[in-house]
Amino acid sequence: MSSPSFTVGIVGATGATGQELLRLLQQRNFPVATLRLFASARSAGKTVEFGGKTVVIEEAKPGVFGDVDVAFFATEGAITKALAPDAVQAGCLVIDKSSAYRMDPAVPLVIPEINPQELRQHHGIIANPNCSTAVALMALWPLHQAFGLKRYLAATYQSVSGTGTDAIDELEAQVRAHVAGTPITKKVYPYQIAFNAIPQVDSFGADGYTGEETKMRQESRRIMGLPNLPVSATCVRVPVVQAHSVAINAEFERPVSVEAARAAIAAFAGAELVDDPANKRYPTPLDFTRQVKCGVGRIRIDTALENGLSLWVSGDNLWKGAALNALQNAELMAREGWLKPKAIAAA
Amino acid sequence: MSSPSFTVGIVGATGATGQELLRLLQQRNFPVATLRLFASARSAGKTVEFGGKTVVIEEAKPGVFGDVDVAFFATEGAITKALAPDAVQAGCLVIDKSSAYRMDPAVPLVIPEINPQELRQHHGIIANPNCSTAVALMALWPLHQAFGLKRYLAATYQSVSGTGTDAIDELEAQVRAHVAGTPITKKVYPYQIAFNAIPQVDSFGADGYTGEETKMRQESRRIMGLPNLPVSATCVRVPVVQAHSVAINAEFERPVSVEAARAAIAAFAGAELVDDPANKRYPTPLDFTRQVKCGVGRIRIDTALENGLSLWVSGDNLWKGAALNALQNAELMAREGWLKPKAIAAA
Repeated sequence: MSSPSFTVGIVGATGATGQELLRLLQQRNFPVATLRLFASARSAGKTVEFGGKTVVIEEAKPGVFGDVDVAFFATEGAITKALAPDAVQAGCLVIDKSSAYRMDPAVPLVIPEINPQELRQHHGIIANPNCSTAVALMALWPLHQAFGLKRYLAATYQSVSGTGTDAIDELEAQVRAHVAGTPITKKVYPYQIAFNAIPQVDSFGADGYTGEETKMRQESRRIMGLPNLPVSATCVRVPVVQAHSVAINAEFERPVSVEAARAAIAAFAGAELVDDPANKRYPTPLDFTRQVKCGVGRIRIDTALENGLSLWVSGDNLWKGAALNALQNAELMAREGWLKPKAIAAA
Repeated sequence: MSSPSFTVGIVGATGATGQELLRLLQQRNFPVATLRLFASARSAGKTVEFGGKTVVIEEAKPGVFGDVDVAFFATEGAITKALAPDAVQAGCLVIDKSSAYRMDPAVPLVIPEINPQELRQHHGIIANPNCSTAVALMALWPLHQAFGLKRYLAATYQSVSGTGTDAIDELEAQVRAHVAGTPITKKVYPYQIAFNAIPQVDSFGADGYTGEETKMRQESRRIMGLPNLPVSATCVRVPVVQAHSVAINAEFERPVSVEAARAAIAAFAGAELVDDPANKRYPTPLDFTRQVKCGVGRIRIDTALENGLSLWVSGDNLWKGAALNALQNAELMAREGWLKPKAIAAA
């Protein structure tokens, strides 16, 4: 029997993550029999080239998922909440990048390099982690395997593409205005982002932490199966277009060494070790834009934590932090035979 | 007796810190009788307007400090090391921004809001802290007074002006090339800095920490009088022109509260409390460029440290991190009568 092909949908096809999904579906040769693209009514009717064919964007609304085998939801949580139940009802597997279902105990939250076995427990929806969490865990998971993670503290350097295409446009417009010497305006962020750093990603909770900071704590715990892991994050937006970076201080149960940590990172499928201080080699977000692996470097013995390591990770928030992780989940489902085309499943 | 005026020198007058010193001497009405400006032979002969007069830049070399009462050294450590002993020999007080003498037990390392009493113990040289340390301590010192600092972890977001005017030019040139669609070149930093983050400030030590990271540990200990304080820093260059920011996780001896922490920050002369999450009010480097105080916000109970606080500080690396702190040290010396013009001293 030849490998099956799928009717694949993308909800939010015109957004930053949707665009990267289109790129990745082709690059990674996902077995797409038919591609259906969905977006807001505003974008419906526009066309996209995919694999030599022209695909017309349809309005995302209930009733469209009848023949779709797997739909990547690359939209905000409210739209997922409104449409995902209809897709599940139609027998379509929903792979969602939003936060809508991440903490729902009935929905697996999966990074395939970490907890792939949980994919089997889905009831029609698979959630993908927050972008900063995904990037940080590409370093923390192999170190946890090696030394036993006890707690971690993180400060993020997050790119504007995490906010969406309008934020990329805003950074570009502000930089152009700066060069032209014309007034700089803002709309997406409460402060100018060009030549600035904004210590707010997502909205504030009553405890003073932002949604992004709370997600890093909650999702790290859930994905790694460490329900009481202490995590403290400060999430900051910086004038980078794509790829997030995270400075991490991590404390472990067992003694650590830089050599063993480097070996653990180098052996992990989700990470690339870039750690050669003598030659000024370490990851930067520009070098890890549109890369499958997240770069890990600056590994050193932490001078303020017991059995601690300090390190730096850069990874693409739209790839491992969104589109790529979603696609990797679908690839694994297909490879294991857990995802079947409706036509075959019904036969 | 009227307040004395001084013959003031600036070594490194054409650099980023030297330029801010000129601005601050005028803005803060330091009693300048005569201004002498020194720079490399390349800049000698150029002129600068100061207080309605034209000052000709002289070459910085031994023998020029004969009539100078106080010289601000705003150059790199090697130049300070070469010239400061000659200035001291000539009876000139050296106030140095470089790292040359910061860890010399015979040289006071002073932030006037923290350890002003140490100014009296000088032997001709007063050192000023590293920029990231100065900014971080504007938050940590009042919190230490309130709760007893036990350790801290920091991740910095450092502006290119900390490297110098050539780095400001490099960021500007890269941004212009990006807008023009022409190739981006680099010379000052090993990686492109526009739209990027570079996790290296200063050169690497054998332990994997950069000089900047080690300075934060050593200088924090010395200035606050906490010789064993555990400090772990990750120092990162970001595409910001002026003002550094620091994300801090700090652990204390005694129980903490957000309210008490805010009160301690608000009452401290070196800090401005900007901490109103509901209205998206927190410091950013743009808002704290050329500000006397450092902005402190995002204060919350740390979720990974016992008796811990997470917070965010933004402050001008060329002001509190260099020129302003140096000038404040001189102001205090003059105000207390510890600095006297040579003419009067000899009378």
